This record gives sequence, structure tokens and C-alpha cells, in this order.
Amino acid sequence: MLDARIIEALKNIVGAENIATERQDLLCYSYDATQMEYLPAAVVHPANAQEISSVLKLANQEGFPVFPRGAGSGFSGGALPKAGGIVLVTTRLNRILRVDTENLIAEVEPGVVTEQFQQAVEKLGLFYPPDPASLKFSTLGGNVAENAGGPRAVKYGCTKDFVMGLEVVLPTGAIIRTGGETYKGVVGYDLTKLLCGSEGTLGIITKIIFKLLPFPDAKKTMLTIFDSIDGAAKAVSAIIGGKIIPTTLEFMDHATLQCVERRFNLGIPPEGRAVLLIEVDGDRDLIEKQAQQIHDIIKPLGLVQFRAAKDNAESEQLWKVRRLVSPSLRDVNPDKYNEDIVVPRSKVPDVIRLIEQIQLRYDIPIVNFGHAGDGNIHVNIMVNKSLPGMEKKAHEAIREVFEAALSLGGTMSGEHGVGLSKAPFIELELSPEQIATMKAVKQALDPNNILNPGKMFPW
Amino acid sequence: MLDARIIEALKNIVGAENIATERQDLLCYSYDATQMEYLPAAVVHPANAQEISSVLKLANQEGFPVFPRGAGSGFSGGALPKAGGIVLVTTRLNRILRVDTENLIAEVEPGVVTEQFQQAVEKLGLFYPPDPASLKFSTLGGNVAENAGGPRAVKYGCTKDFVMGLEVVLPTGAIIRTGGETYKGVVGYDLTKLLCGSEGTLGIITKIIFKLLPFPDAKKTMLTIFDSIDGAAKAVSAIIGGKIIPTTLEFMDHATLQCVERRFNLGIPPEGRAVLLIEVDGDRDLIEKQAQQIHDIIKPLGLVQFRAAKDNAESEQLWKVRRLVSPSLRDVNPDKYNEDIVVPRSKVPDVIRLIEQIQLRYDIPIVNFGHAGDGNIHVNIMVNKSLPGMEKKAHEAIREVFEAALSLGGTMSGEHGVGLSKAPFIELELSPEQIATMKAVKQALDPNNILNPGKMFPW
Repeated sequence: MLDARIIEALKNIVGAENIATERQDLLCYSYDATQMEYLPAAVVHPANAQEISSVLKLANQEGFPVFPRGAGSGFSGGALPKAGGIVLVTTRLNRILRVDTENLIAEVEPGVVTEQFQQAVEKLGLFYPPDPASLKFSTLGGNVAENAGGPRAVKYGCTKDFVMGLEVVLPTGAIIRTGGETYKGVVGYDLTKLLCGSEGTLGIITKIIFKLLPFPDAKKTMLTIFDSIDGAAKAVSAIIGGKIIPTTLEFMDHATLQCVERRFNLGIPPEGRAVLLIEVDGDRDLIEKQAQQIHDIIKPLGLVQFRAAKDNAESEQLWKVRRLVSPSLRDVNPDKYNEDIVVPRSKVPDVIRLIEQIQLRYDIPIVNFGHAGDGNIHVNIMVNKSLPGMEKKAHEAIREVFEAALSLGGTMSGEHGVGLSKAPFIELELSPEQIATMKAVKQALDPNNILNPGKMFPW
Repeated sequence: MLDARIIEALKNIVGAENIATERQDLLCYSYDATQMEYLPAAVVHPANAQEISSVLKLANQEGFPVFPRGAGSGFSGGALPKAGGIVLVTTRLNRILRVDTENLIAEVEPGVVTEQFQQAVEKLGLFYPPDPASLKFSTLGGNVAENAGGPRAVKYGCTKDFVMGLEVVLPTGAIIRTGGETYKGVVGYDLTKLLCGSEGTLGIITKIIFKLLPFPDAKKTMLTIFDSIDGAAKAVSAIIGGKIIPTTLEFMDHATLQCVERRFNLGIPPEGRAVLLIEVDGDRDLIEKQAQQIHDIIKPLGLVQFRAAKDNAESEQLWKVRRLVSPSLRDVNPDKYNEDIVVPRSKVPDVIRLIEQIQLRYDIPIVNFGHAGDGNIHVNIMVNKSLPGMEKKAHEAIREVFEAALSLGGTMSGEHGVGLSKAPFIELELSPEQIATMKAVKQALDPNNILNPGKMFPW
């Protein structure tokens, strides 16, 4: 609960119409995609960096925590107000400020929805590649704060790779610019990349300068089915070794295929044990040549089926297999824990085998799919939470999944972040000295621990 | 001067044969490419991270500064021991630890020379694109510490874009790992990118994990001459707008052309006012098509000459124009200040015009060339330092060059870093709040200001 005096002060900053304190309003900002729930004391909707700065200065004076939030679509509880205090929503800062078609950069506010930005620049012949699954509703500010990835990361990189500069309100309320609008720049420390993926713990992003690319000429989609996971994994290395870096190299394991086939009957051959959905983009002639090369490269690796789309309609048809994964998972069990481990890409079969053992040991169905090109596997632990003891069992299985990834030189998360859900596990991955260094940075920028406390580190 | 007791302690750490205290030995480590000179009290050559850690712990106890140094080829005085203390040379850590051809990563020690690394991975069919001009002697540790660039940055990015993880000795002596060997990873703050370009002020790099690419199939070099700088600048935007991102887009202004032509007589037509040396790489068929497309795109922009190399020998011939720039500059004046401003690429003609005015105002020849694709221009202020007042005049002109770049949304440095030479100017570019934030990070990691003090910020 916040003091009435503080609520009054917040009203003075953002206007009475931009603050909510009623339970029914607070509920809307109490959850995210993790299904965890924490009720804030108030929700504020500031209009600009100045108002955000004033809120943070007040928070430092009065000692209440502030939890920044975009669309609340995160998979790690990063936007949840675990410690009470206020949720600060950035969705009113939702303008695309400019798109510079000559220098291929854009400046936006954090509340712009990812897909809307992509469509706006595409109209100008430009390309913003990062494509998190949430792109229809997630905001660019959240994408930057979490360093969102997506299928196209294997060729183009993640959100961070497109961020050239930021305007940020620091936890103390100071407003700074980081980076800039030049492709190179080595003056001072790289605060831009430090803030990307800092999960709203080091600053609230109020402007983003993105680098853009020319929109690719054409794309070519291929659905390829292998008789083993090893074959699919070898195909990934062989394609890249063959000097082709596909736009996407989406992987689905046998359990995933079975889910999709059971529900949608797409005609996946029964001997298919793993799928790679491959897409190349670029010059129209080159991609046709690459499609042929890819076929020749992967043919000896236990290829069961190879379908190449002739046009966009056929491409959409092939993507359907991937898109139907999520809707069909619920047939397995009503609840899922969606983790997103990463291993060096050659270790994908090893980690899948370790996960199969975990599955057997815990007797919980686990379905794996994801981005094979960068070794980023979405591990879906399917449970029925209403059964007694299931949640605890699932958490133990999750810990073992993380340990499996780490044992192969991997990481617990490639896209979702640590937030609340992985904070208890962070010591599995980071050494005490690494954590101490990160906490020293946090302490330096947020001496009163006002901004998004309780996230990332177990405080 | 260091206490004999401290020298003794250092000998115990690195071995008596790996420390130098005699003036003639110290002299070798007193300068870099800037021609500034500062004599250290001692030079140590540790063998590994543990020894470096012990040296830093001793430095904290005894309160002497430590200046890390690779090959000493920097252009900003970053490795110079301005405040006395010791120089710590990392060149004994010079092993390529492994090249993983399946996952396209390599792990190296910081003392490996850039070109030797490139050649080693090329033998395995792999590609490490960053190509600073110093690559024949600069070390990878220095490249990371300064975030070195080079002509190929326009397509491939700078050193930082290839660093996936580090082992670092922090200023306190703690040894930590940052990042890892996966292409994605969002667990904790991005200390890797924070350390890249931190100019040896936040840690001493002892291992680097690099991302590699398949070596490109083929390349095609084109020498293109324009009748105006505006034509050349428009060509850059038009080529990229035409969906072609060349590997290099090297620019030379009229003064540069005159220098080269005067000395080497390469047959550059007199109406030529600006050169773009363009290279594309990739698929053999595609690059031929792209060369034709480039020709068609730039033809209406005042193209005076277009020469496309038919093979590697002809390509070398065309690159000669660019390679002869440095040797021919000394004909203008014996001394040069080599700055490396960046502006958004469409602003290159504007900044060249502003520099022409500065040249006239100060009556100092200024020769501009560099990487037009990313707007990174090497501004060479040619002086004769032996003439009275010249140095002061040059410094005033340099300040105006920086101001010109900043007025166009640019930065003072795209590759060389701040070091000592730009520290007095950093407040032109960064706000007091930005500097305070960076200093807070430095203070958090280096509470006793032991590591490379006096660099980057005016302390």
C-alpha cells in the first residue's frame, strides 16, 4: 500500500486520469505470460521521459519500488511488481518519431508494438528483422529490455544487434542519451548494450534508435523432415558450413511433430523424427540456387521429405506446421512451462537426449522446438498444475533441464530473460564473482534499488 | 618510481626474467602510434590470468597504477602510462586455444596478432572479418579493448560484433568469465559488450571467444571515380538502397587523390574529385550481378571512371590506390594527426565541406579518406610540428573538426577510441550525466582507480 500523499504526488506528475489504484484496474497489470501474479499498489501511465524522471525521483525520495512494463508479454515475470510499489506502463510513448530512409535508421518510442514498426518500415522498403513470437502485441521497449530474439536471429541477430542508441531515464531520474545514430562509435563505455537485456533494472527506455536493412528481395521456404534428430542437427552445421546462412532454421522434435499431426493431420510421414523449417532470403536468383544447394547438402543426412515453397502462399502453408505447435501443445497437458535454453548448435542432439532422460525420470511430457541455427531450444514442460505435487516436480525437472544445457556449454535463456522465474537458478550459470560484478553495476546506477527490484538476482 | 619492495613482489609473481626496469627497456613501452611518450616505472610480461590477477591485487594493496598493453599500435594513447606505474604487456598470452569448425567459434588469448588469427581460421575455410589497418601487428586483445573497426565494418560490423565471451581479470584481481559460446544468451547484464571498447579501464582481457563466418566464396573489387563528393556520397546511399551491402565502401577525397597521383602517377583522371573503392563478396554468380547493378546505380551520379577487377591480381592493383594513401601523405607535411570522426553516411559531403572551411581558416592541409559506408572518415591534419605554434594551431583545428562531426549528429571517434588524446574533448560529445554514469560504472569495478587511470575521462 502506498501513502495517500504519494498517490497525490504521482497524480500531480502524470495527471489523475493516468493513474489507477482500484483493484479491478490493478489486476490488469498484475500478470504476464508466466501466469505468476503480483498486485501493484498503483499503476501509472506517464506521457514522456520528463514524467518518468519525476516518478523515479519521487520513488527515491519516498523509497517505493517502480516496475516498468510494456505490453506485459514477457515469459520470465520481468514486469511483475513482486515487491509491491507501482507499475509504470510505457505504452503511451508509442510514436514512430522518424524513419531515415537514406541512413537506414529509425527513432521510436518504447511503446510501439513490434509488428506495427516492422510494417511501417516495410512500407518504405526497409527491414527490421527481430521477430519474437510475441511481435503482434509486445512493444519495442520490452524487446530491447529483454533483448528479444526470434527465428530470424540466426542470420540477422537479436534486438540488441539493431539498437544503435537510446534515451533512458536512469533509476535516479537522470535522463541520458546513449550511443547515437552512427554505425560506428567508440567514445565512452557502451551503455547502450549494457541497457539492452538489463530487464528494466538499470533504466527505463524512452527512445530507441534502430538500425534497419533494405527489405530483402525475396525469400524461399523449405520444410525438411529427417529420420533422426542427429540428421537434422548435422544438416544445420552442414548448411552453414556450405556458406549459406539461412534466415531461419526452425527445429521441431518428434514429440512436437506428433502433437501437431495428431491435431491437424498435415501428412507428416510417420518415419519423420525431426523437422527443420528452413528459409533463405535475399537476391531472387541466389535463393533458388541456395535452395538447390541445401537440398543436395542435406540429402545424405536421413532426409525423409523436402518441400520447397514456390510462392508466398505455399510458404505460409509450410510455416503452418510451425505455427500450429503452440495450439496443439495443450492437448498434451493443460499447463506448460516454456523454457528457452541454448547450447552450441552442434550440441542440440545431446541436449535433446538429456531432456528425454529427464522426461522419463520425472514422467512429465516435454516437447522441444525452437531455433536450431543458434542452438536455442524452447523446452516445453507440459503439466497439469491442478494435480497435487506437479508444480514442485516440474520445478525440479526445469532445474535439471538448465543443468543439462549448462553441462554442454550452454545457457539457461536465449530470449526470455531471467526476471523472477529464473532468478532462483542464476547461480547455476553465473559465478559469485560474475554476480558480484553485475550487482556492483546495478548498485552504481540504482543506489536505492528502486527500479525493478527482485529481478535477475536473488537479492 | 616504484619501491624496490614492490619490484621484488612483481618479480615473485611474473619471474625476474619477465620484468624490466632499465630505462632502455622501458623506452620500448613508452609510446604508441600517437607519438606521445610516457615512461613507466616498470614493465611486466605475465604469462597467464593468475599472474595478472596477482599483479592487480598487489597494485590495489600498494596503490600503483597498471597500464595494460598489447602491441602498442593504438591511435589514442590508450596503452600509455601517463601516471607512471607499470605497463602490463599481454603478448605472452598468444595462443589460439581452439577453433570449433562445427559451431564456427574460436577461443584465443589476447596476444594473438590479428592477421595471424585471420590466416589460421582461413585455412579452415572460416572468416574473421574485422580488419583494422594495424592488423599485421595489432593484437586481438587490443582490438577488443578498443573495438577496432576497418573497411569491412560496413557489411560485417566491428570487433565487438564478433566477441561472444571473454575471460577478464577485473581491476580488483577477480577473474571472471562473461558471455559464452552460444549465439544467444540473456542471463545477466552484458558485461562482454561493456568490456569491449572500454580501453583497458574496466578489466584485462585474458581469453576471447570469437564468432566466425564461413569464408566467402569470392569477391569483386571496383574502383569508381566521381566528379564530386556529393556524387560519391549519393552513390553510397543508392547502392545500399539498391539492396546491396558491399563489404567495403572506401572513400578518398580530392586532396587524397592528389597526394597519391602526385607521388605514384596511377592515371587518375583530373576531373576525378572523389573515389569509392567498392568490394562485394559472397556467391560467385551474385557478385558479378551486383557489380553490374552497382555500375547501373552509380552511373547517373557523376561517374568518371569505373574499373572492375577480373581477378585477385587486378583487385590488388585497384586496392593499391587506397594502400598508397598513407605513404604519400608525408609529402604534404612531415607530421599528421589522424582523427577518425563518424557522421551519418548521408552527411559525409556536409562534414567534408565543413572540414574544407576549417582547412582554409587554419591554413593547414587536411586530407580525408575512410569508410564511407558507415560514415567513418579519417581526417588527417598534416602539420610540421617543428614550426613554432603549429601544434597549438593543429589542436584548435582538431577541436573544430570534432565540433563539425558532432553538429551533424556524429561522433569524435569510430575506431581509435578516446584514450589520452581525446579525453580533453569528451565533454564536447557526452553530457555530464552520461560521463557521471560511466564514471559510476568505472568506480564500481575499479574502486581504487588502479587500471589505466587518466584514460577516456578527464579525471
